[in-house]
Amino acid sequence: MRLTPGEARRRLGASRVARLATVSASGAPHLVPVTFALDGDVIYTAVDAKPKTTSDLARIRNLRASPRAAVLADRYDEDWTALWWARADGEARIIDDPAAAASPLALLAARYAQYLTAPPPGPVIEIRVTRWSGWSAS
Amino acid sequence: MRLTPGEARRRLGASRVARLATVSASGAPHLVPVTFALDGDVIYTAVDAKPKTTSDLARIRNLRASPRAAVLADRYDEDWTALWWARADGEARIIDDPAAAASPLALLAARYAQYLTAPPPGPVIEIRVTRWSGWSAS
Repeated sequence: MRLTPGEARRRLGASRVARLATVSASGAPHLVPVTFALDGDVIYTAVDAKPKTTSDLARIRNLRASPRAAVLADRYDEDWTALWWARADGEARIIDDPAAAASPLALLAARYAQYLTAPPPGPVIEIRVTRWSGWSAS
Repeated sequence: MRLTPGEARRRLGASRVARLATVSASGAPHLVPVTFALDGDVIYTAVDAKPKTTSDLARIRNLRASPRAAVLADRYDEDWTALWWARADGEARIIDDPAAAASPLALLAARYAQYLTAPPPGPVIEIRVTRWSGWSAS
């Protein structure tokens, strides 16, 4: 059954990990797992020290070229009556200014104690969600 | 650390759930969780009875217009030294012909007992993987 926008937001917001999809300049989808914080209808995620490959910055390159982003959280279980997913579609911008990134980074650190000892060095991605959707098996 | 293509394939192939990203005709990313089967460098997934909304068929519409697809599996853990992800980038085609879909559907049913009692009615998506990549914290 379809989730209401409010319920999709609640479930995604309570998840510890989500996946971020962006689109490259050549039109290819790009997909990475992200930690994130939700503030109303805005999702924040930061490029942190976890992934060290250059290709990881593809998400930043992509969003600078095309701001459209999708964020998905889901639950898998061998009991398929327990499955659900929640998705946020929106428009992203990159927060390069350290002063402007301070408040989103504080939200992230409040959610992930791991960030207290190792604050994410990378830019912050802000996604303004324009559509919440989702589905639950029961 | 970066995963070798072989290790990325092994980890993704052993996962029970992955996320499929496609791109709409207007250039927006689309993201859904999928069950799947891996056969060499080919990923099969089927539109099954789980999601019932029309918008779920967006993945099929998208792939008919642009075949580029990304599939991601990841592990989240509060111990961030246990994190990893594995991604397959490739080109998809839709298998509409029931005879051609029989073998992929058998692979899916071999992997998910749930499909034995409720075979997926929808078309099968075949993704030929052109790039395996991934990352592991340890």
